[in-house]
Amino acid sequence: MNKSPIFALLTDFGTEDGYVGAMKGRIQSAHPSAKIIDISHSIQAFDVRQAAFCLSNSYPFFPEKTIFVVVVDPGVGPARNGIVVKTSQHYFVGPDNGVFSYVYRREGHQLTEIQVDSLETHISPAFRGRDVFSYVAAMLAAGADTSQYLSPTKSSVSFLKSPAEINENEFLLEVIHIDHFGNLILNFHKNDLMNLKNVTDESLDIKGVKIRDINITFGEVPEGEHLLVWGTSGFLQIVRNMGSAAKTLAVQTGEQVQLTL
Amino acid sequence: MNKSPIFALLTDFGTEDGYVGAMKGRIQSAHPSAKIIDISHSIQAFDVRQAAFCLSNSYPFFPEKTIFVVVVDPGVGPARNGIVVKTSQHYFVGPDNGVFSYVYRREGHQLTEIQVDSLETHISPAFRGRDVFSYVAAMLAAGADTSQYLSPTKSSVSFLKSPAEINENEFLLEVIHIDHFGNLILNFHKNDLMNLKNVTDESLDIKGVKIRDINITFGEVPEGEHLLVWGTSGFLQIVRNMGSAAKTLAVQTGEQVQLTL
Amino acid sequence: MNKSPIFALLTDFGTEDGYVGAMKGRIQSAHPSAKIIDISHSIQAFDVRQAAFCLSNSYPFFPEKTIFVVVVDPGVGPARNGIVVKTSQHYFVGPDNGVFSYVYRREGHQLTEIQVDSLETHISPAFRGRDVFSYVAAMLAAGADTSQYLSPTKSSVSFLKSPAEINENEFLLEVIHIDHFGNLILNFHKNDLMNLKNVTDESLDIKGVKIRDINITFGEVPEGEHLLVWGTSGFLQIVRNMGSAAKTLAVQTGEQVQLTL
Repeated sequence: MNKSPIFALLTDFGTEDGYVGAMKGRIQSAHPSAKIIDISHSIQAFDVRQAAFCLSNSYPFFPEKTIFVVVVDPGVGPARNGIVVKTSQHYFVGPDNGVFSYVYRREGHQLTEIQVDSLETHISPAFRGRDVFSYVAAMLAAGADTSQYLSPTKSSVSFLKSPAEINENEFLLEVIHIDHFGNLILNFHKNDLMNLKNVTDESLDIKGVKIRDINITFGEVPEGEHLLVWGTSGFLQIVRNMGSAAKTLAVQTGEQVQLTL
Repeated sequence: MNKSPIFALLTDFGTEDGYVGAMKGRIQSAHPSAKIIDISHSIQAFDVRQAAFCLSNSYPFFPEKTIFVVVVDPGVGPARNGIVVKTSQHYFVGPDNGVFSYVYRREGHQLTEIQVDSLETHISPAFRGRDVFSYVAAMLAAGADTSQYLSPTKSSVSFLKSPAEINENEFLLEVIHIDHFGNLILNFHKNDLMNLKNVTDESLDIKGVKIRDINITFGEVPEGEHLLVWGTSGFLQIVRNMGSAAKTLAVQTGEQVQLTL
Repeated sequence: MNKSPIFALLTDFGTEDGYVGAMKGRIQSAHPSAKIIDISHSIQAFDVRQAAFCLSNSYPFFPEKTIFVVVVDPGVGPARNGIVVKTSQHYFVGPDNGVFSYVYRREGHQLTEIQVDSLETHISPAFRGRDVFSYVAAMLAAGADTSQYLSPTKSSVSFLKSPAEINENEFLLEVIHIDHFGNLILNFHKNDLMNLKNVTDESLDIKGVKIRDINITFGEVPEGEHLLVWGTSGFLQIVRNMGSAAKTLAVQTGEQVQLTL
């Protein structure tokens, strides 16, 4: 049993209705010494992809044994299964809707499914974040025997698409996320690049705008110009120095972009 | 004296001006080992009813002796009294403007009024959240003698209206809250239903739209359809599967709804 | 070494991308017993002045040795230096862009500059909040020898303007901040007033509207009226009882106001 377990919360609840407060209270009551850390409660309602990206940026930096409780789910209720993902470092508790896609890609992991009917607690089916996920998270932190309600499973939902190679060193990419500053994050990871050889030049076409060179800092181009950078998440990004690339390029999540290396 | 007291904060301050930071700093300075938990700082400015609802969803789940500091108050200054509400489990500190209405309804409680003039600390009248409520909360956590500035009182403001029975098993309800997802929360509590007998069918009229059946989960109706559910707060709610009932029904807080059981 | 160091975070990141989560994870990993307190992550993107004001309202109330990590910076990258400001009570870590202007004005302080090239950690230049500022903050909390990468410096950026005296007891002031409630904060501090003598009457002109009397609480004027108050930050404010002065007076940050004492 962990003496001061760390719980990191990620939801699309906002805070103004008290739903997050209920989760925090429930966890703190189960573990008076728990540390509860907010990752975010301002994920767009039901936006599983945004939550997945947000999680992927945060979780690698957290201490061992941190338990991530992620509640972003369009299909509230019993239809969608709850799962626990265990990696060598962390636990993740949440719905099986792809929100852990980046975790699957990067980490060796074990998957178990939450058998809600076997939980020995009062369950309000409309609020799994409080009654199922927070409860299971608290049990994991306590080192409790969870075998009664966590059953091994092999399949899980993932939405992560690899970049599509269309020619030699030409890729069709997708905007997977637009961040707070309007930076466009693409589904092309630094690791994807390492697998390629003979990369001498980079150039990217987006809506007819040609963007050259993978620079490393904003400071190296004039204010207002676009550039390609490797983001802190390891993904290629289109950014605009002192501005929003999303606005000037009028791009939405899901749009396609052609990259030539 | 509580070694690691828990303070749960609920304000309409937003965080961008540093007012919440000041409150946190003040509490943490008084109790270096305090745990400060944010319930919300994004309550609509001056919206006492939203704050009351948010609090009612959160407080029951918090550990014993948690001290809730609630600062949502249209009438800043000396006109409105500050109060401390003590229940069997918790303390609540804030203005006497009805923000604790749901607590009064549910919990046995003792009421004391804060005599600001008797506080032995510097008071900036414009910032009672920091100088009065956080201070009193810190004193309560320390187990200090508060008899000098907390005087017993019997009356307190409450805005909670009971559902009005207009015929046998017909009720005029009010939308008391619209949550982050556009769910409409009504002033009809599960406990109100238990007091009735012979309930065989439910049907609700809102702006000519008939909504039938109290279902229990979103998953049981097609996407986009409205349904009645018992919310996690125990109140009856009108929800729309995968959408905002508030938008499709164009309803505001305070609107009336007729329920036939 | 501090056993349970307190880190107070202030950024313009929002929380929805996971960048704040990454900073929290990094600090918590370095100090499993650290207390991380959010001041704000909803500063307007790149708004150094808002961040400075927010910080100035919060920091004085925090316990000794609190480490403030402030990341609001239009010029991300190596161009702008990172600094550490040490006062008798606190540490401040962030970019040298004026965000600590109010701290300089109020507190005796020592200034050191972060030599990024000398840090013994992996640095992603695009995310100094996580890789430079959080790292340095963690080192300070650990009482580590920082002499290798913190070099004393004397100059630092500050934007704080004093009120301009245009005649005897007449001042040209500037709106330095508009808060969550629409209150207009002016660059005229209580201390500025103390330096004047023979103040018998106050009157302020703003866009032709004359505002008289420095009152102390909202409760003393009718709803909807404007008044001058000393804000909780010590600065003179134009407020509107139960409303937004910013809206009715249509004022922006940076506008000028004439004060006659």
